[in-house]
Amino acid sequence: MPDDDVFKQFKEHSIAEFFKKNRQMLGFTGKVRSMTIIVHEIVTNSLDACEEAGVLPDIFVQVDELDKEKEHYRLTIKDNGPGIPRSHLGKALGQMLAGTKFHRYLQQRGQQGIGAAACTMFSYLTTGQPTKAVSVYKGKKLTASIGIDFKQNKPVVEVIEEVDASEGESGLTFISEFKDVRYERSNYGVYEYLRRTALANPHCAITLIEPEGRSTAFPRSVIVNPSKPTEIKPHPLGIGTHDLLEFARQNREKRRLSSFLQETFSRVSAGKIDELRALLPNVDLNKNPQDLSWEEAEALVKAFSQVKWIAPATDSLVPIGKDQVEVSFRNIFNPEVLVVTERSPKVYRGGIPFMVEVGIAYGGGVAEAGKKGEVMRFANRVPLLFDSGGCAITETIKTMDWKRYDVKDFEEEPIAVLVNLISVHVPYTSAGKQAVSPEEDVMDEIKFAIMEASRGVQKYLSGKRKAHEIATKKKVVSRYIQQLSGDLSSLTGEKKADIEKALTKIVEEKYAREDMEVEETAETGPETGNGKPDADNEGEE
Amino acid sequence: MPDDDVFKQFKEHSIAEFFKKNRQMLGFTGKVRSMTIIVHEIVTNSLDACEEAGVLPDIFVQVDELDKEKEHYRLTIKDNGPGIPRSHLGKALGQMLAGTKFHRYLQQRGQQGIGAAACTMFSYLTTGQPTKAVSVYKGKKLTASIGIDFKQNKPVVEVIEEVDASEGESGLTFISEFKDVRYERSNYGVYEYLRRTALANPHCAITLIEPEGRSTAFPRSVIVNPSKPTEIKPHPLGIGTHDLLEFARQNREKRRLSSFLQETFSRVSAGKIDELRALLPNVDLNKNPQDLSWEEAEALVKAFSQVKWIAPATDSLVPIGKDQVEVSFRNIFNPEVLVVTERSPKVYRGGIPFMVEVGIAYGGGVAEAGKKGEVMRFANRVPLLFDSGGCAITETIKTMDWKRYDVKDFEEEPIAVLVNLISVHVPYTSAGKQAVSPEEDVMDEIKFAIMEASRGVQKYLSGKRKAHEIATKKKVVSRYIQQLSGDLSSLTGEKKADIEKALTKIVEEKYAREDMEVEETAETGPETGNGKPDADNEGEE
Repeated sequence: MPDDDVFKQFKEHSIAEFFKKNRQMLGFTGKVRSMTIIVHEIVTNSLDACEEAGVLPDIFVQVDELDKEKEHYRLTIKDNGPGIPRSHLGKALGQMLAGTKFHRYLQQRGQQGIGAAACTMFSYLTTGQPTKAVSVYKGKKLTASIGIDFKQNKPVVEVIEEVDASEGESGLTFISEFKDVRYERSNYGVYEYLRRTALANPHCAITLIEPEGRSTAFPRSVIVNPSKPTEIKPHPLGIGTHDLLEFARQNREKRRLSSFLQETFSRVSAGKIDELRALLPNVDLNKNPQDLSWEEAEALVKAFSQVKWIAPATDSLVPIGKDQVEVSFRNIFNPEVLVVTERSPKVYRGGIPFMVEVGIAYGGGVAEAGKKGEVMRFANRVPLLFDSGGCAITETIKTMDWKRYDVKDFEEEPIAVLVNLISVHVPYTSAGKQAVSPEEDVMDEIKFAIMEASRGVQKYLSGKRKAHEIATKKKVVSRYIQQLSGDLSSLTGEKKADIEKALTKIVEEKYAREDMEVEETAETGPETGNGKPDADNEGEE
Repeated sequence: MPDDDVFKQFKEHSIAEFFKKNRQMLGFTGKVRSMTIIVHEIVTNSLDACEEAGVLPDIFVQVDELDKEKEHYRLTIKDNGPGIPRSHLGKALGQMLAGTKFHRYLQQRGQQGIGAAACTMFSYLTTGQPTKAVSVYKGKKLTASIGIDFKQNKPVVEVIEEVDASEGESGLTFISEFKDVRYERSNYGVYEYLRRTALANPHCAITLIEPEGRSTAFPRSVIVNPSKPTEIKPHPLGIGTHDLLEFARQNREKRRLSSFLQETFSRVSAGKIDELRALLPNVDLNKNPQDLSWEEAEALVKAFSQVKWIAPATDSLVPIGKDQVEVSFRNIFNPEVLVVTERSPKVYRGGIPFMVEVGIAYGGGVAEAGKKGEVMRFANRVPLLFDSGGCAITETIKTMDWKRYDVKDFEEEPIAVLVNLISVHVPYTSAGKQAVSPEEDVMDEIKFAIMEASRGVQKYLSGKRKAHEIATKKKVVSRYIQQLSGDLSSLTGEKKADIEKALTKIVEEKYAREDMEVEETAETGPETGNGKPDADNEGEE
């Protein structure tokens, strides 16, 4: 019978086989994009490693064209991080879903443990060559070749050499060959990717050597690393029943549910436990967390949503920062108006903290550069160059009522919007990490942040318009005074100059008041360079 | 040292853990969408199972609201397929990347072996309940509960009952509870999803019972299953070096490279082997395939691209079909013009065959329904309701030069475009399978298909315009003849009626010719209902 045959064909597959067949889900579609994706994966890992070790990142990227006709390239990416020990090198570069990123509640660029192995995979699929890695870790310099056993999702490591490192040497070098890629200086190429990386990571020095030998340095403009995000506990808001139960069941120590809650989640104080107790007369907060039932956990989750919590700790989320966004934006665009907004941390499903920072530049250099409706997306300081169509950031900007902010047609005005989403876990739409999924809580915050910044722009624009109107009116009135004082003079016999002086004084006084008002409303304009968040958060509940 | 700590945190994770944390990559974002995704995953599996077994699908979907306040639902989805044997039930519904879909070169709706287990996961994550399955397979009726061990990515099966089935009974029933979902009759809801499924699967009968008890039947309009797509061999075009080598190394039989190629790939005949031999003087086609080197494989792949191949077998790809798309489109829209195009199969990377069918409806009922620039996306007859922003189909339509086809502004005209991408492996952007990745070869074909259909629409539109112009001109000329014949009559003394008759004859003859031309160019209009593919395929080399 045919259905017997079907079940004979039943097989299990590894995640490496899955992504080998579905490389487009990792972002490997198109030659230019594929090359950028590789640089992106390796550079983000390097930045994470350097910052975690407290080292100011020095990143070197070299693209060599080995064969023009065959579109055969070699990529060399070197960092000055701590390196990777021999025991972990294979897993870090040749096994998917293995690593230090996936399970930690820590803001990092990488978060899946797939990217580096995906590059090793792509190299092997297109050239048949393993990837070469040179890791200088704690005085030892290890050179190894790394491949992947797809069926098992296991690394295939061959140590080429292990020697003592030079004094002070440290870091990882990734050397890998690729075909089915192309180097191009386009909006989607490696150059633009690194330019934007430098923009959002001013503490980082990047050198790029392009295929034809041209060397570009993106020097660091800040000589300290951004403050290190703290590894945090999940926030009770947004935690699901299943998550809560899983935490409870993993709890091996003998303790009460109440102390388990305090120790597992952030912001749960003794006072909050009392509040929860009052809300949950039927749940025994002294019981062993291991005995928590689904119904009790569900009741707890409901109670969590009824308690007023302190927002997640700010030090768990590190934005680019208002000052820095301003400096960077001015450097690129030198706009007429610039407003930067940084919202306080919020939480989305799973108790995951996140925050949004937004910069809006308008006019001036934006117009001169011919940019219209420009959107620059970042997540944890990583530039997102692709899949803008399916991204919550783009989607939010597209559906904003811009007219409300005196921006008639977003696509047609000299406006540039930068959005950086910062989170312990960015909800990407796919393993390729190029677009943010339309999670409701996240989209709301993006919207509020853009609205906040837009109000600053609008105040400036409307202030500018009003100032223009006043100046015009003043001119008209002055002409009228001329005429009127002449007429009055001949009617009354008073001196024309005296009448004119008196009338002018009245008018000047009136406009001085209006001018002041204009200045006040325009304070978010170029003079101060930033918009104070308004007290009222329209739209937010 | 801190970096020691980092590597102590090194862990390996299962794909189930990965998707548990990244459920948005499976399409689980938003309550309404999540519910549709569940129905989508289970219904597509049911349709595949029925068709594979040669059974006309009868699908029953019931949505029960168990608790309004908690948004707690139960979904029951029942099919009349062959059922699943006890040995495979757990893996089919409770293990990711296990199944019959992933590795076969066969056009199916499912292709990953993730979807059903993802639903079981989502149910468990939101309600803590295992999923219940009733499988009637070969006379046995098995009722079991199915959960997932996330750490291991293994099913947790508990058999509740196994009894003899009733005579003639067969099929699978999936019964599962969910929270964090919502039933809504919106454009993204279950109703619309099933309506579109029925549209693209006229051989399928679907019954939907909505939460408030309303029952809707989408009856079958065709009483035979579409012809069964044949399981095929990969096509040499588009095969990569790595794929070729992998096939060669898997080859266990003692045979020559030449016969390996003929037996592993489709369309490789003895004649083609001779052509390859001529192109590859340095590759010994008599060698053992196991000994094939990367360089030789690369040379073979290059030679593949230089040989003229027969396109992939048409019977491996089964479209909805021209007639059926016409019937369905007329039923929904009753448009003024309707053009349906079906392109011949092509191949994209990996030797994967695919084809595109397109229907364009314009005016008439489209306008009456208030639809403008409507896009209906399908892949292997499965409606794609989400992520249109990141989809190659939408992207292609958006970037088309519609003016060239007399469609001034796509978004503002009464036009509806249906695109169905048929393939042995659809390159989805993520595991949620809602958008097609922008693979170059695939996008080109979508474009050519839309262009082909658009030409039909354009001919009709321009024919209509021309006919209107001729009618106007004729009216003007007739008036002129009246005047002229009167004038000529008084000048020459000839009878006015005779002159008028003679002039009218000349004019009628001229316009009869032009009319015929118009009719010819408008033949793709409503009279014939389809556009003959043009001989010239502009744009396609």
